[in-house]
Amino acid sequence: MLASKLFVPTLKEEPAEAEVVSHRLLLRAGMIRKVSSGIYTFLPLGLKVLEKVKNIIREELDKTGAQEILLPIVQPADLWRETGRWEVYGDEMFRLKDRHNRNFCLGPTHEEIITSLIKLEIKSYKQLPLLLYQIQNKYRDEKRPRFGIMRGREFIMKDLYSFDASYSGMVKSYELMYNTYVNIFKRCGLKFRAVEADTGAIGGNISHEFTALAEAGETEVVYCQNCDYAASIEKAESFLEKEKGKIEERPLELVSTPGARTINDVSKMLEIPPERFIKTLLYEADGKILAVLVRGDREVNETKLKNTLGCLRLEMVSPMRIKESMQLEAGFLGPVGLEKENIPVYADYEVIYLSGAVCGANKQGYHYCNAVPGRDFTWVKSADLHTVQKGDSCPRCQGILNTTQGIEVGQVFQLGTKYSEALNAIFVDENGKENFFVMGCYGIGVSRTVAAVVEQNHDENGIAWPISVAPYQAVVIAASAKNEKQINTARKIYQDLKEAGWEVVLDDREERAGVKFKDADLIGYPIRITVGNKTIEKGTVDIKIRGSGKEYNISMEAVCSEFSKIINSLEKI
Amino acid sequence: MLASKLFVPTLKEEPAEAEVVSHRLLLRAGMIRKVSSGIYTFLPLGLKVLEKVKNIIREELDKTGAQEILLPIVQPADLWRETGRWEVYGDEMFRLKDRHNRNFCLGPTHEEIITSLIKLEIKSYKQLPLLLYQIQNKYRDEKRPRFGIMRGREFIMKDLYSFDASYSGMVKSYELMYNTYVNIFKRCGLKFRAVEADTGAIGGNISHEFTALAEAGETEVVYCQNCDYAASIEKAESFLEKEKGKIEERPLELVSTPGARTINDVSKMLEIPPERFIKTLLYEADGKILAVLVRGDREVNETKLKNTLGCLRLEMVSPMRIKESMQLEAGFLGPVGLEKENIPVYADYEVIYLSGAVCGANKQGYHYCNAVPGRDFTWVKSADLHTVQKGDSCPRCQGILNTTQGIEVGQVFQLGTKYSEALNAIFVDENGKENFFVMGCYGIGVSRTVAAVVEQNHDENGIAWPISVAPYQAVVIAASAKNEKQINTARKIYQDLKEAGWEVVLDDREERAGVKFKDADLIGYPIRITVGNKTIEKGTVDIKIRGSGKEYNISMEAVCSEFSKIINSLEKI
Repeated sequence: MLASKLFVPTLKEEPAEAEVVSHRLLLRAGMIRKVSSGIYTFLPLGLKVLEKVKNIIREELDKTGAQEILLPIVQPADLWRETGRWEVYGDEMFRLKDRHNRNFCLGPTHEEIITSLIKLEIKSYKQLPLLLYQIQNKYRDEKRPRFGIMRGREFIMKDLYSFDASYSGMVKSYELMYNTYVNIFKRCGLKFRAVEADTGAIGGNISHEFTALAEAGETEVVYCQNCDYAASIEKAESFLEKEKGKIEERPLELVSTPGARTINDVSKMLEIPPERFIKTLLYEADGKILAVLVRGDREVNETKLKNTLGCLRLEMVSPMRIKESMQLEAGFLGPVGLEKENIPVYADYEVIYLSGAVCGANKQGYHYCNAVPGRDFTWVKSADLHTVQKGDSCPRCQGILNTTQGIEVGQVFQLGTKYSEALNAIFVDENGKENFFVMGCYGIGVSRTVAAVVEQNHDENGIAWPISVAPYQAVVIAASAKNEKQINTARKIYQDLKEAGWEVVLDDREERAGVKFKDADLIGYPIRITVGNKTIEKGTVDIKIRGSGKEYNISMEAVCSEFSKIINSLEKI
Repeated sequence: MLASKLFVPTLKEEPAEAEVVSHRLLLRAGMIRKVSSGIYTFLPLGLKVLEKVKNIIREELDKTGAQEILLPIVQPADLWRETGRWEVYGDEMFRLKDRHNRNFCLGPTHEEIITSLIKLEIKSYKQLPLLLYQIQNKYRDEKRPRFGIMRGREFIMKDLYSFDASYSGMVKSYELMYNTYVNIFKRCGLKFRAVEADTGAIGGNISHEFTALAEAGETEVVYCQNCDYAASIEKAESFLEKEKGKIEERPLELVSTPGARTINDVSKMLEIPPERFIKTLLYEADGKILAVLVRGDREVNETKLKNTLGCLRLEMVSPMRIKESMQLEAGFLGPVGLEKENIPVYADYEVIYLSGAVCGANKQGYHYCNAVPGRDFTWVKSADLHTVQKGDSCPRCQGILNTTQGIEVGQVFQLGTKYSEALNAIFVDENGKENFFVMGCYGIGVSRTVAAVVEQNHDENGIAWPISVAPYQAVVIAASAKNEKQINTARKIYQDLKEAGWEVVLDDREERAGVKFKDADLIGYPIRITVGNKTIEKGTVDIKIRGSGKEYNISMEAVCSEFSKIINSLEKI
């Protein structure tokens, strides 16, 4: 391709709208453009990268025997009502009506559609296991679409669904996909970790997120410095140190704590550390009020709380509402006496092992000291309800936990029979008995993967694409656009490489060499081949590797024969 | 691929929902499934065909220097308001709101989006011409979605947009695309005609439809039996025979025609042929009432009428409404005296050359005889307003016109500056002057092309895919699933062909040969290779060509080497 014909509107200025590196560089390198909040156009080079990622995914999935299909984007509401998810998705789902006033949504995911398909088409265990996938647009009306194509409202996903006759079969499919994901993300040139994850709106029991490590990532990953434990912050657990909170029990004591509004305030006033406090928070879950207790130095993990309650909607009760209904500032809330108010109490495991804690007294300006769980207050359920912090102990080996940021590029789920039961999708097993399909589902954010690759592969001058997903493998530049000998030599190399089947751009624009070099760095061609006066004299060309910065000087005649060696060496990185 | 693993749910029964052959066979061959009215899933084989069509399109377009991009499906309403098409599309447009109550649509086409992109990114004539295309879902909330993927509400289109610095440049781009379309549809194995077409909601002046000839088609094509004139029924013109209607003028005469409600009734009663009648119809165009006159043997062409009026909405006034407002049955309407009612009259060219015609007298039970245009009534505009019929004269050569049915698989438009003016998209020309981009747009119904291929390539047993778009090139069948020698031989041939890079299915299912042959015919593999006892004895295999029915018997060892010859011979068809 000739650069003079290529539609790559590079930008010299920093785009004001861009918050993270990948967003900024994909805009500057002329690969994407914004149409509306969270909605983007892929320009030629951006689309080429996207297609390369898609092809890697297809190649790896096809090896497993998975078959590609194409499910619709516009989906009838009725199917979603059958599984109850018409409600679950709330504002995040784009909804629309057709001319006959029938309800539809733009698919945020495709479990309903695929399960209803399989229900009609697969009758026997002989046809199982079955792996079906598609690469298709998905829609989520995010509260805060941002970071370009990292968190869009219209985005491209690969989703695969496995159908097995048994749980053990499903686990096998899950492992197959887990390993395939490792291969896919490796081939895309990503540094990533597979972490235990919450299953969220998709459901099921076991799930892993594939997280590309990057500062710009919105996902917090907890990992052990000692063993290979890793989990998303929503899912991560810590070792429960039962003895840590043990002290001698004393009588409950009401103390005046005027003007102390936070746990820190009261901690300083009473000279008792926050980890000996009980933090009490009110939540409204599907319209019912309840109290949650965590240690004073902890935050409530709302994902864990939602899973414990099994509710659809969860919201913290605002301080204003507490003040109106209880004539109390939120800081003075406590568990003692809540049962009289008919507010059920959910206690974090750590709380119930405290044998003397400070908590609000449900009386403006007062706290209790020496509150003992079980003696001074009760609870309806105890569970793991706190968010793990850096420095906590690993639940597996008691090593020290650390945290890092990452981009969730893929997630795999063991769904079990959640959808097949809801939609009554059954097959006949080898004994003639009817059973629900045992399902798994497996997603890759295709457009997000492109963003993650840029987050991990760039420098101050631009993108440095891994060879596997680069829009073109090389650019050929004549240092002087006016020197005919240089231009002809560059053109010859370009044509030879093209004929040999390589993807090459000839920068034939009437620009200074500096401009061409800058654009080459910004766009991130893995290999730059430069023809200059000096090199022509010597009968050589300069080759520069974008990623490593390494420079070679090789003979003009050898370019074509050496090229595959260079590509091979880049593929090994 | 092994047939035992392939997800191809073929149907023995005729699907009740299917109205046309392609719909029926694509369902029966397990290639598509309906999700909702006009919304379909592509199963593995259906998707393979779709991808082959896409690849043919990509290869041919890339040859022209066109570049592929990907524009969003969800599009902001504001852009559509700027061009006035938010209104034009009416009920056919799927509309939705996001969580902030902002209006969006699902793109029925992409002129607005691409023009607003180019407006920002292209500044100079040096960057022109530019050809950009995408293959993307489109959405039209059809009043009557039907015929499977032939007229869906969610469907796949290739749309290309050309941007030129001048009209002559645009015409060149148009010719380039026209010729490219010819190549694309030829490669897809279609018999088609390029016909002059109306530009409809897309706009512009010149347009051609590429129409695959097929009985099931919804498009009526008019063509000359003598010259190469061809046009869609909406657009087709006939030679105006001015002398045909000439007779001696006589005085206007009121005649009683009680009980005669149609032109045929009156024609019989008065013994005057329908072509000497004037048919008067009332229309409401953007809220205004007007009358249209055509000859008694003609139908009004509403597309021509809409173009003549330049209105957005056009509807015929119902007989009931006429009765209520004029105390008149519609059959007694006529042009004489309509000006007094302030109803503007639009007359078809043929009408104004009648020198003595029968028409309604605007009085229940009465007609006028000998009405002379210009003498007895006037009109605000005369234009070509009638629909051409079989047997009319060709506007170019006066040969006889004929009609046929077809499927519109593509359409190309010379848009000119319609969208660049509306969106103020300008570039600077070589003299430093600002100009509007001169545009063309070019669509191919990708999923509809698949249906058209089936309409043209099938028999009573199933589909007969052209080799270029077949999901697989061949199927290998062992006549007896229990004969190990047969099975091993079949497997060997299958593996040899696969290793040679061919796309082959081995039917390894435990079914009778008859079932396998039936499925092979239904699915439409172009080549069937059968291994039986007799052939093994002779050291040969049977080869049957699905399309032609030809059978060969070739030596087992030669299968692989002969295969490319067979493929070549099929490609030439």
